[in-house]
Amino acid sequence: MFPYKTSIQLDRKSNQALYLQLSNQIIQLIKNQTLVSNTKLPGSRTLAEQLEVHRKTIVACYEELESQGWVESIPKKGTFVNRTLPTLNQQKLKTSSNFVLRDEPDFSFYRNQIFRKRSFEREDNFIYLNDGISDSRLTPLNEIARTYRRISAKKNIFKHLSYGSTYGNDDLRKVLVNYLNQTRGLKIAPENILITRGSQMGIWLSAALLLKQRDYVVVGATNYQSADTTFLNNQAKIERVSVDKDGLVTEEIKKLCNRKKIKAVYVTSHHHHPTTVTLSAKRRIQLLNLAKQYNFAIIEDDYDYDFNYNHAPILPLASHDTNGNVIYIGSVCKTVAPVFRIGYLIAPREFIDEAASLRGIVDRQGDALLELTFASFIKSGELDSHIRKVLKIYKQRRDLFCNLLKTELGQFFEFDIPKGGMAIWTKLQETHCWEAVSEVARNHKLEIGNWRRYDSIQSGHNCIRIGFAAYNEGEIYELISRLKKTMKDVA
Amino acid sequence: MFPYKTSIQLDRKSNQALYLQLSNQIIQLIKNQTLVSNTKLPGSRTLAEQLEVHRKTIVACYEELESQGWVESIPKKGTFVNRTLPTLNQQKLKTSSNFVLRDEPDFSFYRNQIFRKRSFEREDNFIYLNDGISDSRLTPLNEIARTYRRISAKKNIFKHLSYGSTYGNDDLRKVLVNYLNQTRGLKIAPENILITRGSQMGIWLSAALLLKQRDYVVVGATNYQSADTTFLNNQAKIERVSVDKDGLVTEEIKKLCNRKKIKAVYVTSHHHHPTTVTLSAKRRIQLLNLAKQYNFAIIEDDYDYDFNYNHAPILPLASHDTNGNVIYIGSVCKTVAPVFRIGYLIAPREFIDEAASLRGIVDRQGDALLELTFASFIKSGELDSHIRKVLKIYKQRRDLFCNLLKTELGQFFEFDIPKGGMAIWTKLQETHCWEAVSEVARNHKLEIGNWRRYDSIQSGHNCIRIGFAAYNEGEIYELISRLKKTMKDVA
Repeated sequence: MFPYKTSIQLDRKSNQALYLQLSNQIIQLIKNQTLVSNTKLPGSRTLAEQLEVHRKTIVACYEELESQGWVESIPKKGTFVNRTLPTLNQQKLKTSSNFVLRDEPDFSFYRNQIFRKRSFEREDNFIYLNDGISDSRLTPLNEIARTYRRISAKKNIFKHLSYGSTYGNDDLRKVLVNYLNQTRGLKIAPENILITRGSQMGIWLSAALLLKQRDYVVVGATNYQSADTTFLNNQAKIERVSVDKDGLVTEEIKKLCNRKKIKAVYVTSHHHHPTTVTLSAKRRIQLLNLAKQYNFAIIEDDYDYDFNYNHAPILPLASHDTNGNVIYIGSVCKTVAPVFRIGYLIAPREFIDEAASLRGIVDRQGDALLELTFASFIKSGELDSHIRKVLKIYKQRRDLFCNLLKTELGQFFEFDIPKGGMAIWTKLQETHCWEAVSEVARNHKLEIGNWRRYDSIQSGHNCIRIGFAAYNEGEIYELISRLKKTMKDVA
Repeated sequence: MFPYKTSIQLDRKSNQALYLQLSNQIIQLIKNQTLVSNTKLPGSRTLAEQLEVHRKTIVACYEELESQGWVESIPKKGTFVNRTLPTLNQQKLKTSSNFVLRDEPDFSFYRNQIFRKRSFEREDNFIYLNDGISDSRLTPLNEIARTYRRISAKKNIFKHLSYGSTYGNDDLRKVLVNYLNQTRGLKIAPENILITRGSQMGIWLSAALLLKQRDYVVVGATNYQSADTTFLNNQAKIERVSVDKDGLVTEEIKKLCNRKKIKAVYVTSHHHHPTTVTLSAKRRIQLLNLAKQYNFAIIEDDYDYDFNYNHAPILPLASHDTNGNVIYIGSVCKTVAPVFRIGYLIAPREFIDEAASLRGIVDRQGDALLELTFASFIKSGELDSHIRKVLKIYKQRRDLFCNLLKTELGQFFEFDIPKGGMAIWTKLQETHCWEAVSEVARNHKLEIGNWRRYDSIQSGHNCIRIGFAAYNEGEIYELISRLKKTMKDVA
């Protein structure tokens, strides 16, 4: 008889019932052909004695095996490994998949790791540069978590726990419509809004709906890298125009339109990513007129609307659009915290309907509890209070950071004080290169990060984006001090 | 002078500062060419008197307009509408977009509304059939919301609020790896798991990564409709094989493989959607062997694993896979509640890496707070307790529902008692049709729903899926009673 006693290990402390542990192990023995087809299993009494378990355990195990089809019980003869089981061809467990992944030419960029971010342990005593993120420590997390729990305790909440609308929660849609109409001069109705998972989903949906393979989309010579990646993923072709102090150069867009069919223009009107300039009023009108004349869509990613230090925000292109050309994208990820994946896509109704279908295929729906939480957070004015509060703090940080960068490191770096946003577009003196600075910085526990990403077309502008908002006063002093030591070593 | 007093409405109760209300309205006047280029604006004192506001308000407004580029101030002359502003071509606001949406032949299915679900107000006194959803009222919402708040109050939580891993939160990945290895006989490491937004994202990612345009994917003659839609959206071609009492007929898959290159087979092994049968042990081994022989991927959507009433669940195909052919998909949407969009994709590491890139493009990342909440919920054993609790309740509901359907309506409906899941595959006697039943049912405040979706290839099987789990005892009696009245009218 097969040595069941030594082949089977039962763990009496496990949560899993003994008969299930036993049946799973017998299945393994059958699968790896230790117990071949038609093998007679021992009688329940015999096996119970061997394994020192109750006979009922063995009976339950055999019933389980039979109901799953692994064994068959033949009256008066006993229990046998099923005779009709095919053999499972064995092979060592692989770490890589055996089937071929989709492999279009444009697909290889997946492997560039741009979008494959693993979490990594940061070293405590390092300072990491970023490209303009908010300070997580200022997140009104307690207020949000309290609201989340309060909403979860509501009597009628259960209707929100099942499958819901692919457009997003209706309460949040209505609240956002009011909020955006008031703050951004839009004139939209709930039918014009889809709740997304942050701006990225808005960009992706727009790209997927607008751009066919080899369609042209226009972006800045410098551009938000995630947008570039998203367009390439949708197998669109990217055309680039210059970016000056007024934003995208519309004259160049016009020239492009005369040469080829442009399907869409992507613009971070407020403020251009990465250079931080604002698209001027004149350019805005020109761009809208071009969109009408050449019938292209404007994908307006207004991620930075709430962060202006010198004047009120400029109303978005979407507020001037009378022709249905603008798709407007925003989120609370910048204003509250990236962890809250709530954004919106604003467009003519027909487009929103298509987007709702597509988002349904990708992830079915959003998180209604979180959406209700944010509906309450916005309606109560807490979002506005929070923005006012952090705007003041970020302005102080900008001023301090720019001041120190100018006085302490002015001989190495050129920059304009950004009128808004959370980052400074910083040019390194041309006698130096970021590669060397980056390397030396590590000796001073300063991580510059992926500086190459700001110049995807290798124009050699020698600039990177340095976020200032996520550091408090002490950290800014320390960062500048480390950068100073770095430049001293480099120079 | 332009009649500013009558053209401009200021709301002193608004949250928006007066100078901003004023400047936004002047911008509108400029944009619609009421105030044309080079128009001189009134002096600040004059306008202040007219509008009955403080002069400082007008000064702030003009500064705002100037900083945005709408007006220019000429020393000693005054403030003028910017002379270099182009004219914005006016047109009435459109409800439809003016640009052409992507319009491949296969794209029209978007418009079939399958995936475009609006929230709708249900009539209180109606009973709505569903295709097998859980009972939201049993959701352990209080426990989850409490955990959410507890986690949000942790000292080190702030590091989880910024941008995170596209693979999902590492704590949840580790917890799920243990949980799945224990409960499903898998042998995976954290590198084999990606946290998704529910099963739907898992299906979508698999389809997008595996299937090129016109690639073949095999599904059942009846199949989970969302999977069909997802494959079609990725422009794959669908091949169908029969489904019998043992699930997908593997012999037919083999024949297909001999005729054409099959890239993937989609299987709801446990239990087949919609017919509720379990893929037998024999078929499982055959399918794995075919996958190896013909080098296709198996997309195993094991949405129903936790719900078995007659025996323990059968271990998934993924637990037998030694060749890296199986992509395993599951979620907590069925076990806890659909609102919690947390699922997982299990695959060889290389595939997970590609999936992490692609999910980064679609929605960047998951919700780390919710993921940490579920890591705690699973680790503490609360998920298992919850499953044990509802399993008992759903079994009672199944028994009651099947019993009543048999005794009260046996002359009209045929069905097998499902061994698991939350739905009964119910065949209407062929002398009747669902169209008529559906219509008459509404008179008895019973909504059958979209019965057509279960027979997308119009085979005429005359079956629909009727969920039982979401109704309590009283509701089941009432449902059966209304169905009985309906059938009496129909017959």
